Amino acid sequence: MDMGMDINSDLGEGYGPWRMGDDAAMLEIVSSANIACGFHAGDPLTILSTLRGAAARGVAVGAHVSYPDRVGFGRRRMDVAPDELTADVIYQIGALQGLAAAAGTRVSYVKPHGALYNTIADDAVQADAVIAGIRAVDPGLVLMALAGAPILERARSAGLPVVAEAFADRAYTPTGALVSRRDPGAVLHDPDRVAGRMVRLATEGVIEAVDGSLLRLEAHSICVHGDSPAAVAMATAVRRRLTAEGVTIRSFVTAAP
Amino acid sequence: MDMGMDINSDLGEGYGPWRMGDDAAMLEIVSSANIACGFHAGDPLTILSTLRGAAARGVAVGAHVSYPDRVGFGRRRMDVAPDELTADVIYQIGALQGLAAAAGTRVSYVKPHGALYNTIADDAVQADAVIAGIRAVDPGLVLMALAGAPILERARSAGLPVVAEAFADRAYTPTGALVSRRDPGAVLHDPDRVAGRMVRLATEGVIEAVDGSLLRLEAHSICVHGDSPAAVAMATAVRRRLTAEGVTIRSFVTAAP
Amino acid sequence: MDMGMDINSDLGEGYGPWRMGDDAAMLEIVSSANIACGFHAGDPLTILSTLRGAAARGVAVGAHVSYPDRVGFGRRRMDVAPDELTADVIYQIGALQGLAAAAGTRVSYVKPHGALYNTIADDAVQADAVIAGIRAVDPGLVLMALAGAPILERARSAGLPVVAEAFADRAYTPTGALVSRRDPGAVLHDPDRVAGRMVRLATEGVIEAVDGSLLRLEAHSICVHGDSPAAVAMATAVRRRLTAEGVTIRSFVTAAP
Amino acid sequence: MDMGMDINSDLGEGYGPWRMGDDAAMLEIVSSANIACGFHAGDPLTILSTLRGAAARGVAVGAHVSYPDRVGFGRRRMDVAPDELTADVIYQIGALQGLAAAAGTRVSYVKPHGALYNTIADDAVQADAVIAGIRAVDPGLVLMALAGAPILERARSAGLPVVAEAFADRAYTPTGALVSRRDPGAVLHDPDRVAGRMVRLATEGVIEAVDGSLLRLEAHSICVHGDSPAAVAMATAVRRRLTAEGVTIRSFVTAAP
Repeated sequence: MDMGMDINSDLGEGYGPWRMGDDAAMLEIVSSANIACGFHAGDPLTILSTLRGAAARGVAVGAHVSYPDRVGFGRRRMDVAPDELTADVIYQIGALQGLAAAAGTRVSYVKPHGALYNTIADDAVQADAVIAGIRAVDPGLVLMALAGAPILERARSAGLPVVAEAFADRAYTPTGALVSRRDPGAVLHDPDRVAGRMVRLATEGVIEAVDGSLLRLEAHSICVHGDSPAAVAMATAVRRRLTAEGVTIRSFVTAAP
Repeated sequence: MDMGMDINSDLGEGYGPWRMGDDAAMLEIVSSANIACGFHAGDPLTILSTLRGAAARGVAVGAHVSYPDRVGFGRRRMDVAPDELTADVIYQIGALQGLAAAAGTRVSYVKPHGALYNTIADDAVQADAVIAGIRAVDPGLVLMALAGAPILERARSAGLPVVAEAFADRAYTPTGALVSRRDPGAVLHDPDRVAGRMVRLATEGVIEAVDGSLLRLEAHSICVHGDSPAAVAMATAVRRRLTAEGVTIRSFVTAAP
Repeated sequence: MDMGMDINSDLGEGYGPWRMGDDAAMLEIVSSANIACGFHAGDPLTILSTLRGAAARGVAVGAHVSYPDRVGFGRRRMDVAPDELTADVIYQIGALQGLAAAAGTRVSYVKPHGALYNTIADDAVQADAVIAGIRAVDPGLVLMALAGAPILERARSAGLPVVAEAFADRAYTPTGALVSRRDPGAVLHDPDRVAGRMVRLATEGVIEAVDGSLLRLEAHSICVHGDSPAAVAMATAVRRRLTAEGVTIRSFVTAAP
Repeated sequence: MDMGMDINSDLGEGYGPWRMGDDAAMLEIVSSANIACGFHAGDPLTILSTLRGAAARGVAVGAHVSYPDRVGFGRRRMDVAPDELTADVIYQIGALQGLAAAAGTRVSYVKPHGALYNTIADDAVQADAVIAGIRAVDPGLVLMALAGAPILERARSAGLPVVAEAFADRAYTPTGALVSRRDPGAVLHDPDRVAGRMVRLATEGVIEAVDGSLLRLEAHSICVHGDSPAAVAMATAVRRRLTAEGVTIRSFVTAAP
């Protein structure tokens, strides 16, 4: 039985005169677009343009919320107080909702970005602040988080729908954590191998860990990157192979407004 | 017959550790709050706090949209391209809508701030860009603009509801323009005199111009300031006198979500 | 023998239309001004105005360098990479040097602000990054840090002149650490008591810890605050009492360019 | 007789994770680098890295000062008040001086960027504000401006050294103005033709205007771009042809600290 699989990627990450990644190419590959909301990247016009592209292709839209750190691209952990973080999340989702409405689509899910994504995976205080922010705007929004991370259960308990994602180009430890980028082999570069791993994940629900053991991973979305031609090529390979193996690429939500 | 009168003021204009004006005091006076959206002032938590205050008192909420110029407080004219300006307006309204939803209220109108307010009063290109931005989010939003300004008719023609406002503490020329702040007597400082002028505006629809002539001014909202104790005192005087003369202070929209 | 004592305070912390503290009043009290450099507070014109005041009164000028976090006022710890932090410090010192030259004075010392101040007190990586930044601009600049903090020795070893400071309104543990603001009694509010403590520090080199024990503290500068009328009153009391007891208030550096 | 010719280009225009242009390639071509100072582009680490490259190659360094408008890349005219503009210019020059010192070089000149460049070419108020800012930091700094623009004489009268520049890839009107980018033929794309024009400018002091007439243009620097591979190729062609014709490429200042 084809359960289908979502493919997501970070888009709308230009800023003013600066471009990042190939949004047009990636919108042909993904079923879900994590769109920057202005705090780590994305000015209103860039975001609006990406949203129009997503709307035209029926790609689902997620709010890629971040710490307020543009020069650091949201990659630096910040000790933001919970009430500030909640308000920051609401602001970003709202801004994207406004632009999405103007583009003829809507925001379906929220994926925290960069350091915030990593922090809330297991920091309960910041996790709760993010969850509170999402619920305050719309309790029907889906939270996208790392498969296996404690925040998934935490969000579910708070009544928030969740979707777990796997990273196409990252190695996993036997316990389901990502191998740290500081360790060798953390990032995979062979499109064929990556595509093969994703097929197995989609069809068997398993992924091979760095020690060769098989890891059961419940993931309904696969994260791919588009920040270089090689990354676009790998994302293309993943999508093609999944499709060839009979896996339907589709969002976990309905993109229609 | 009591037509009622709206009183509006600029609120939520703190930023991070910095405060501006006395939002709590002003929320007891106004029926409509023009709330900063982060471009000239207002961080998410400050905005959210002000929105909660507005919601608790049934004060209507407007998006006080601005050029992206925080250090200049949105007071400097900028040659923003129309598509950028439209996207900037959408972003700010959306962000405020998100925070308003979290605070249990909603955005009912849009009032451009500072240099943008002055520019679009008669610059058709930027005016149309702002109108397009408002309509793209929600064509039911009301545009608040200077009584007598060409943008009012422009917005009406585009199908946007509008409300005209008068400035309590400003002198008017015989043709209905504000006396320039560079000229003597542009700003009025006597609370009694100001309150008297506003009563006449509310009950007779006229205001005395600088040359002593009577000016007919169709305004359904009065703008007051709260950025100093004297300003709060003047706003209080205006409200008291209007109420004493039988004018009901009420928003031109329904504040309830 | 009068060793003299420096009094320092954080100044130039307005931003755009927003004011913070009473710079004019504080410049009559302090011998050293820690002036914001634009990252947590301070726009160029506000900074320049404060520098002119410092120059006119012969007050020494220090660069109050910060993490790049204006909305958080530099109070939130950030995981800034060492090379980024070094460059951020250089940029801020340079900017202040330019404005100081225009105001007819010069930058004599560097005092990290807020979360950066606290972090580098004992985080060797960020401490070294700050030290490298200061030395890259001018190895003659003095680093101001918390009396007793490891960074003092670290900076000295790197060849940087240092000055240790005590906080007038803070309680100390028996080992010389500041009592956490989360604990009761961390902040002292009685101007007389505070002034008395500072006299003892200046004349005997000791301060009473929270448990009543006497703590030896080598400090050549006292930090006072000016962010409220009460704070200005306390700073005034400290200066008056020190002067009355024969302690000369003077900077640890020569303010003249 | 070889008068020599300077070639300048805008560098250091990345920001955070975003890159712009090929700084390494351009540093092999130019004798002067206009380096962003953080207001329209350039974060401290990016700027420092570009300065190190300039220092290593003996390329002179200029402060590419801008309006405070990063998202608009300094390309939008802003009504900045004169005292604000002066302080903004000082701040940016100072910041670059600090980073230049750390990189083992120094700032020799100032070239306003984008909309500020165009505005001060003939707006006396903003021009004087910029001139005042430069002089306040160091009256020995050279102002680079458009050949033929009124600001050159204005700066000279104020005692500021100036250097006039021509644009390699732009067409000129018979009176020496740049053909507006809105008009056809404003930008030249043929590297051979552009290189030929620059040789004639360097050796004969003339350039052919759009109507075929010969225009006398006193320019001691040529501005080239590096924001695309084609731009780099054109800049290379200009340098090669000038060198082949016996024109020495050298800065109008001494780059050594």
